[in-house]
Amino acid sequence: MSNSLGVLFRVTSFGESHGPCIGVVVDGCPAGLALDAGVVQSDLDRRSSSGQPGATPRREPDRVRVLSGLYRGRTTGAPICMVVDNTSQDSSAYERLAVTPRPGHADYPAGVRYGGWNDPAGGGRFSGRITAGFVMAGAIARTVLRTVNVEVCAHTVAIGAVEAPPCAPEDVPDRHRANALSCCDGAAADAMVEAIKAAQAAGDSVGGVVECVALGLPPGMGEPVFAGVESEVARALYSIPAVKAVEFGAGFALSRMRGSAANDPFAMLHERVVTTKNDAGGVLGGLTTGMPLVVRAGFKPTPSISRAQKTVNLESGTDTELTIAGRHDACIVPRAVVVVEAMVAIALCDLGLRCGAIQQVVR
Amino acid sequence: MSNSLGVLFRVTSFGESHGPCIGVVVDGCPAGLALDAGVVQSDLDRRSSSGQPGATPRREPDRVRVLSGLYRGRTTGAPICMVVDNTSQDSSAYERLAVTPRPGHADYPAGVRYGGWNDPAGGGRFSGRITAGFVMAGAIARTVLRTVNVEVCAHTVAIGAVEAPPCAPEDVPDRHRANALSCCDGAAADAMVEAIKAAQAAGDSVGGVVECVALGLPPGMGEPVFAGVESEVARALYSIPAVKAVEFGAGFALSRMRGSAANDPFAMLHERVVTTKNDAGGVLGGLTTGMPLVVRAGFKPTPSISRAQKTVNLESGTDTELTIAGRHDACIVPRAVVVVEAMVAIALCDLGLRCGAIQQVVR
Amino acid sequence: MSNSLGVLFRVTSFGESHGPCIGVVVDGCPAGLALDAGVVQSDLDRRSSSGQPGATPRREPDRVRVLSGLYRGRTTGAPICMVVDNTSQDSSAYERLAVTPRPGHADYPAGVRYGGWNDPAGGGRFSGRITAGFVMAGAIARTVLRTVNVEVCAHTVAIGAVEAPPCAPEDVPDRHRANALSCCDGAAADAMVEAIKAAQAAGDSVGGVVECVALGLPPGMGEPVFAGVESEVARALYSIPAVKAVEFGAGFALSRMRGSAANDPFAMLHERVVTTKNDAGGVLGGLTTGMPLVVRAGFKPTPSISRAQKTVNLESGTDTELTIAGRHDACIVPRAVVVVEAMVAIALCDLGLRCGAIQQVVR
Amino acid sequence: MSNSLGVLFRVTSFGESHGPCIGVVVDGCPAGLALDAGVVQSDLDRRSSSGQPGATPRREPDRVRVLSGLYRGRTTGAPICMVVDNTSQDSSAYERLAVTPRPGHADYPAGVRYGGWNDPAGGGRFSGRITAGFVMAGAIARTVLRTVNVEVCAHTVAIGAVEAPPCAPEDVPDRHRANALSCCDGAAADAMVEAIKAAQAAGDSVGGVVECVALGLPPGMGEPVFAGVESEVARALYSIPAVKAVEFGAGFALSRMRGSAANDPFAMLHERVVTTKNDAGGVLGGLTTGMPLVVRAGFKPTPSISRAQKTVNLESGTDTELTIAGRHDACIVPRAVVVVEAMVAIALCDLGLRCGAIQQVVR
Repeated sequence: MSNSLGVLFRVTSFGESHGPCIGVVVDGCPAGLALDAGVVQSDLDRRSSSGQPGATPRREPDRVRVLSGLYRGRTTGAPICMVVDNTSQDSSAYERLAVTPRPGHADYPAGVRYGGWNDPAGGGRFSGRITAGFVMAGAIARTVLRTVNVEVCAHTVAIGAVEAPPCAPEDVPDRHRANALSCCDGAAADAMVEAIKAAQAAGDSVGGVVECVALGLPPGMGEPVFAGVESEVARALYSIPAVKAVEFGAGFALSRMRGSAANDPFAMLHERVVTTKNDAGGVLGGLTTGMPLVVRAGFKPTPSISRAQKTVNLESGTDTELTIAGRHDACIVPRAVVVVEAMVAIALCDLGLRCGAIQQVVR
Repeated sequence: MSNSLGVLFRVTSFGESHGPCIGVVVDGCPAGLALDAGVVQSDLDRRSSSGQPGATPRREPDRVRVLSGLYRGRTTGAPICMVVDNTSQDSSAYERLAVTPRPGHADYPAGVRYGGWNDPAGGGRFSGRITAGFVMAGAIARTVLRTVNVEVCAHTVAIGAVEAPPCAPEDVPDRHRANALSCCDGAAADAMVEAIKAAQAAGDSVGGVVECVALGLPPGMGEPVFAGVESEVARALYSIPAVKAVEFGAGFALSRMRGSAANDPFAMLHERVVTTKNDAGGVLGGLTTGMPLVVRAGFKPTPSISRAQKTVNLESGTDTELTIAGRHDACIVPRAVVVVEAMVAIALCDLGLRCGAIQQVVR
Repeated sequence: MSNSLGVLFRVTSFGESHGPCIGVVVDGCPAGLALDAGVVQSDLDRRSSSGQPGATPRREPDRVRVLSGLYRGRTTGAPICMVVDNTSQDSSAYERLAVTPRPGHADYPAGVRYGGWNDPAGGGRFSGRITAGFVMAGAIARTVLRTVNVEVCAHTVAIGAVEAPPCAPEDVPDRHRANALSCCDGAAADAMVEAIKAAQAAGDSVGGVVECVALGLPPGMGEPVFAGVESEVARALYSIPAVKAVEFGAGFALSRMRGSAANDPFAMLHERVVTTKNDAGGVLGGLTTGMPLVVRAGFKPTPSISRAQKTVNLESGTDTELTIAGRHDACIVPRAVVVVEAMVAIALCDLGLRCGAIQQVVR
Repeated sequence: MSNSLGVLFRVTSFGESHGPCIGVVVDGCPAGLALDAGVVQSDLDRRSSSGQPGATPRREPDRVRVLSGLYRGRTTGAPICMVVDNTSQDSSAYERLAVTPRPGHADYPAGVRYGGWNDPAGGGRFSGRITAGFVMAGAIARTVLRTVNVEVCAHTVAIGAVEAPPCAPEDVPDRHRANALSCCDGAAADAMVEAIKAAQAAGDSVGGVVECVALGLPPGMGEPVFAGVESEVARALYSIPAVKAVEFGAGFALSRMRGSAANDPFAMLHERVVTTKNDAGGVLGGLTTGMPLVVRAGFKPTPSISRAQKTVNLESGTDTELTIAGRHDACIVPRAVVVVEAMVAIALCDLGLRCGAIQQVVR
């Protein structure tokens, strides 16, 4: 396993769904940063299932405990370890999963990879619950980015077939928390809730798309050729369970355009270089252009559904059926919005430190 | 800059478009592998502009020279350095680019990042020409993967608005070299040629989509949570200039499905565990499932076009127009097919070594 | 800060002397390893000050708590987080250290580096107490190494001017725990105790040398040219506070020999290749030879002494005197023996995984 | 193999003793640095065997060729590849080494590690000749360090039993090139020459000790706890073939001192914090103190000697004798002085970039 991410801002994830806790170590955070555990808690609360349509009945208070790295309310340059305890564990439903792997879950390949020794309870290390650690690290990263006036905001742009109308990047911060779905458009949010409820009523689940913007990035950030902004951000996003697609700016639509339409013209605005549109999503040659970074992550539907599904019995080597009990979300997309923000912020914070755009000590 | 990729199979890229050569160092290649420079040359030839519709008139012979790491036709465990010389350099057209950055190119952010010291000739380090190094490393990676019966094949699935009909992953190896576009469907290939020619005639360019499959992967390969297959493959693909979107399996389409449709049912086939469809693209929880890996990369159109474009003069701080002379491709997608194969193979080779699926010495 | 070590077996350290706890995350431990917290506790107990001559009166129970990575008494392939709580904190003595840095301690350069934001209490991140985390990780590493019959043992070979007579590497395991000093020779141990007591009585401290041997290593382990055995082991050992010198085999004495005396002749013994002496310390060209690895680490005396010392007042910019209160060891060498074992084991475990000598799953 | 070193200033080594060339890629060099190939050549010339007492008759011109990364005499931020061609290859003597491994050389463990596939000619990848690449990278690193007024200088302090009297760090730059041995004391240098000649006359070889100082380092550089200055410098030095011991400041002698003698008192001097002696070698807690870095590397004698030596025949599994023909140095220490400088400079350059003491762009 490889549970560390980043070069200078390095995040190490640990913990299992039904173990004692979910945790994270953030190494390389600049020293002297005023850091309130409340900032971390606030992001954890946004990840909470509470108030989410179609969310799992598992209720975890998810109170952050900071185990290291702070002194009198400020970062010290030392690694910051944070945990949330697991309190609501119901492992009984997971006993059989090593034998009859759940479709869409990691049960089968994980069993092969770890020789059957992996923790099956609640998906163990492959549970979406580990993203609580990502969120805690992301809260630190976002606090760091704010010292250089970079704001990272994500919003739900699609749930199943329901798509929200486009929202200008600079409007996202004001609008993305307007509803429980973190959707910038109220009417679309209502339709999304209906789509989730309909899936849930059918014993089914539904996926969606989260868009994330980063505002205030200076031009020239990124480490090409192998650690350009897109490489680092995509890699971080693909660490989120259920993400199967990532695109920047106009993304796949760019491949259907001609160059004259796709290229973003440069212009001067208030003595700054800008582009008059932003189909590149704020990245050229792996480097930020100074325009908003725009990235979209496509989530597959929650693989845990109530319906019977076809699978195999690995002991007998025969086909069989499986009906998953346990608790699960009909749609994890709204809860994943803050996770997307976290991963984008972690990647940008590392790149900012690597190129010197972020200083290692707050002065 | 960060010009090394990989943990155990480590690729280091160097060279500029108009410098003496383009090169690569491959470190961590297993010892004892029979390696013919012809294998590398063959992949380089596929990247050649020769015979490609709408390709640049720049003609480089691109003959590989192996500078280290081989002994009597076999790898030794030592780093393999390979170069191709740059012979057809015409730098005269690039003098002004640092002052009037080309839309869609890295000129502007690179100038900011490197304080104006970056090599502008031919795009310098940001030229697509550096992918010759990727291809040489990819040829090694693919040779390594073949020792464990893994085959990596890419094909063009869209050029502009022209989409090829789906091709089953196992059919790609037989069909992907049927035409100059590396398209598995002849009629689509013809239409793609027309689309490229039309763009070229209009002084314009066009993008497209390349799909890559990897056959024969064992289940359980990958290093979650931060170096799962998707993370590592996407990161590698986003190192290719012009890639703006990457998706696995059904990709963004999964976000519009319900779970009951998206999940791939498991079944036994010839005493092996398979899935009866493969919308996951062969990856669950960041680990290979044993089904074909399927990934698609969306390319933006070549930013270099003959038409006048709006840009800025960085010296005077005013808006201006730019018409790009120099040589460029109306569509780089067909030439990028082998580059996509290379990057996917490099990522998989590294993951195979990291989990022990590939041995460090050929015995 | 850079608080992670290793490529495939990766150790991340966190915690401060007077924070809530000292902890470590071990990532990359093979799955399926029977792991008793008692093994970890046993090593922690050896690091304890209890029973050590001249040791600090600070008494920490140092009970390990495993926060992740185990399931039903076995490793799962997931990261293992372990902590010991800090219970005996007396920070009052440390208030002034940021202003009047202690000679021989990190107070001054750390204040510069972290802009004065570093945690000063008990030395914060620079306290020898963080080695409790190293020891916990080392206990895991040593358990892994035992699966391939490698045993790592350290012993005290010098305290101040008292040197123990040489002990053959293969005799160390039986003899190194014979006394509180982990010295293989009883008479020398007695003299060492006297040396420590004499220093303590004088309000002073004393250093020493720890030798570590690793038995059972297969030939050919190591990752030259930049991650050979010596590079990786030395790097790990220099992470231990107070280590100022590291040598392998005959070490500095080799530089005074002629080649005919320094070279270790090869010979066949029981159908194995051996060397008839081992001045190379079991390493040639950065690779293990199959002979015992022998490495020595020189420790400076504990910088905290009771005597008045000359230092500066950083606020007034004037010279001043400092008398350190607080609790400290007159000699940390005996307590460091298990820390040396830990760091050597961590480095070897990583190298063993990197070359495939250690498998990633216990079968 | 692991042939890359460094995090932000990353050096990748390639090439074999009898292959086409020896090379290196330096990635992460700040952009805008005026770089004359003459600077690199000058260091290569210091490594040359020409004029060295007891040096190999192999004469390589070792002219550097820069393959990438420079534009109009300045660095561009792109990776810098440099090579020297191998021209004087005489492989005939090495045919049998895979069967009868040379004592003190890597032949035996390398054969085990690489399954017999490693290049045996001239030691292949394990030849001291690969340090030509280290020297080229070191010349870049030293040029970078000079932009922040850091000077790295090494000198020979012992050859066999001959020891030079101590030389104050600040005097080394003026005196270390006074003779062919890079010894700061003329009389000692003469005695060293005699020691080398005596060994050579006896068909034998001799080792020695090189001390390196770095002047002008700012306080607070280093990345504890696992990448402190001593860890990074020692790791780099142990990459040099024949180094078996590394110590900082008073080194092993510190372990025989009491704390009151070992601690370096702080004092104010010209409004700067200094220590009134420097037994710590300029490092506390893994961080530079602002005093000169002082490190010593102990070299074993050249393992290639003309005398008959005992070894084994790996094919027959019997003991045998070996007399090494081929060309070799009776003492490599004087030639290694510039290699030591290179490795120390490379490590410091990386640490300087990691903490922001060195900027990524020259402005």
